[in-house]
Amino acid sequence: MTESDGGAELVSLSDDPDCRETPLPALDSWITPTDRFYVRSHFPVPEVDRSAWRLTLEGEVGRRMALSYADLISRPSTDSVVMLECAGNSRRHVTPPAEGISFSHGAVGNARWTGVRLADLLEEAEVRAGAVEVLAVGADYGEEEEEGAALELGYERSLPLADALDPGVLLAYMMNCEPLTPAHGAPVRLIVPGWFGMASVKWLERIVVLSKPYDGFFQDRRYVFIPSGASKASWESVTKLAVKSIITQPRHGEVVPPGEYVISGKAWTGGGEVARVEVSCDGGDTWADAVLVGKSTPGAWRIWEHRWNASVAGHFVIKVRATDSAGRTQPDPVPWNFRGYANNGVHAVAVEVPRRSER
Amino acid sequence: MTESDGGAELVSLSDDPDCRETPLPALDSWITPTDRFYVRSHFPVPEVDRSAWRLTLEGEVGRRMALSYADLISRPSTDSVVMLECAGNSRRHVTPPAEGISFSHGAVGNARWTGVRLADLLEEAEVRAGAVEVLAVGADYGEEEEEGAALELGYERSLPLADALDPGVLLAYMMNCEPLTPAHGAPVRLIVPGWFGMASVKWLERIVVLSKPYDGFFQDRRYVFIPSGASKASWESVTKLAVKSIITQPRHGEVVPPGEYVISGKAWTGGGEVARVEVSCDGGDTWADAVLVGKSTPGAWRIWEHRWNASVAGHFVIKVRATDSAGRTQPDPVPWNFRGYANNGVHAVAVEVPRRSER
Repeated sequence: MTESDGGAELVSLSDDPDCRETPLPALDSWITPTDRFYVRSHFPVPEVDRSAWRLTLEGEVGRRMALSYADLISRPSTDSVVMLECAGNSRRHVTPPAEGISFSHGAVGNARWTGVRLADLLEEAEVRAGAVEVLAVGADYGEEEEEGAALELGYERSLPLADALDPGVLLAYMMNCEPLTPAHGAPVRLIVPGWFGMASVKWLERIVVLSKPYDGFFQDRRYVFIPSGASKASWESVTKLAVKSIITQPRHGEVVPPGEYVISGKAWTGGGEVARVEVSCDGGDTWADAVLVGKSTPGAWRIWEHRWNASVAGHFVIKVRATDSAGRTQPDPVPWNFRGYANNGVHAVAVEVPRRSER
Repeated sequence: MTESDGGAELVSLSDDPDCRETPLPALDSWITPTDRFYVRSHFPVPEVDRSAWRLTLEGEVGRRMALSYADLISRPSTDSVVMLECAGNSRRHVTPPAEGISFSHGAVGNARWTGVRLADLLEEAEVRAGAVEVLAVGADYGEEEEEGAALELGYERSLPLADALDPGVLLAYMMNCEPLTPAHGAPVRLIVPGWFGMASVKWLERIVVLSKPYDGFFQDRRYVFIPSGASKASWESVTKLAVKSIITQPRHGEVVPPGEYVISGKAWTGGGEVARVEVSCDGGDTWADAVLVGKSTPGAWRIWEHRWNASVAGHFVIKVRATDSAGRTQPDPVPWNFRGYANNGVHAVAVEVPRRSER
């Protein structure tokens, strides 16, 4: 944990690499403060000097570019609120257990990002006709194991050209109105709205326009769905966010005072927008529509709330499920995959309502 | 962990009280060796001196009895193989998380017990006409918390009279042909076939025949099913074993050599006998009947096995489910209860079959 990140509220899952998640009650606000925002690193956090930093844009382009930090921030900037969720979020709750960092439900957050549109840079670089993908290369590198052998490699991920040209994709240098911190990719990271976090490459230093699909380690062997019995040829890449919701209040195990109580949380999707959130206070027997709070913001999560009259003493299982405008609903149970990616199973917490006389 | 118990193979979940479970691969034999047999204590393990030990049989009886250890072992003895499963076994896999010691699937074992029939003692004591239950009192005692207050109490559980008179119920002083060890209830414990382990009271020192139902702490507030939303009046006591099965081979995460492989495990029920065990090697899409090995022994578990032709490389989810002669099958998912008792959800493991060229 680096001093500049604060992060006292985060739960550490791994020191090397630095992986931390947010306890659900700390995800109470729409904007997640930076010191409460989850961290997922693959390798040691690189120390990148802003004054020496260069971004190169190369490959299938007419004009190769090299930008300094000063060059980048002097360009027109865009400001947007985008949520990120680690593809391994909720992995701890996969059955049978899945391989990887054991995130519970807190590897997710919603922040304000300021930066330059990737589409603008690509236009300026004059992408050639044969281009199909755009590769983002981070400054982080280290060892990964594959079939018993150690591989030395850096973190790289590519996007289909059409997705890279989405005006929402930013080269962000500010997070929540402050310069990016080292843990979050300083000085510059990619932000890809609607995709799982692995696409939002941190410590960005190279963009390569490709004429054929990229098949590197983090594209082809990690961040792929490996279902039961599937042959390697049928593995699919992890891409856009699934429809999902979490309960941030009450927390699991909470003693809820008898009377009216506001259950609340967040919901999101990578396909359109959140259309409906339903809550059950009886373990899933009956469901009621929650209220969607505020306006829908593309790329951001949505707050929802539901008033519950906790009038009877006992133990109660509260569940939430979201449906998006593409008609997708959270599954229960979720189909298994080896690394437990994209687990969007229905979130449930159990709470106790004490007898009134006990208070 | 006491020296006399060995127990190097057990996984400790709590030192105080002593709670340990068995890793599933160590449950490979029909008889579970004593040093691999799970331990569930509620309080510090009492040191009971065999030479000073007395068992009293009192309450609604015509003849109050007091037996020394020598008196007990001089009586005709019975020898039987009985499995015990902690009511909290598999609690770790309950969603949302359940309250209590976080046992995975290994709080279960099958042992040979030697002792005196409780029915014989009750007959000799001349149970009176108004008797309804038989209370077993252990020598163990300590503190439990209830609604924020500390209670000082001992471990006590009762059985309906008809169940106590079952000829299978033993006052056991031998386990696997050796004197009982302290962790398993020395010098004498009750063994109640077909019931969850909480009925098999350890360090037994008093038997009380009751004229009305017992409502003590471990009968009425612990070892009760508390479903979502249920009022206290509707809580039900945990009694007999559910139908259940576990995979002991392969273990979760195992790399299985390509070719024919024998999947095996155990199955049991508290209602009749195991009638059928089915195995799926494709994550639950298709199921095949497993072979039930050996004869069915009342009160004991049953070995099952299934030959799998692991001919294709990949990751595979293997599942097992049992059905008993009462027609009950393991549920998936399992209805939630606050303390996660009697979780008999379908057991699943994921394994990898490597490509042949890798070996």
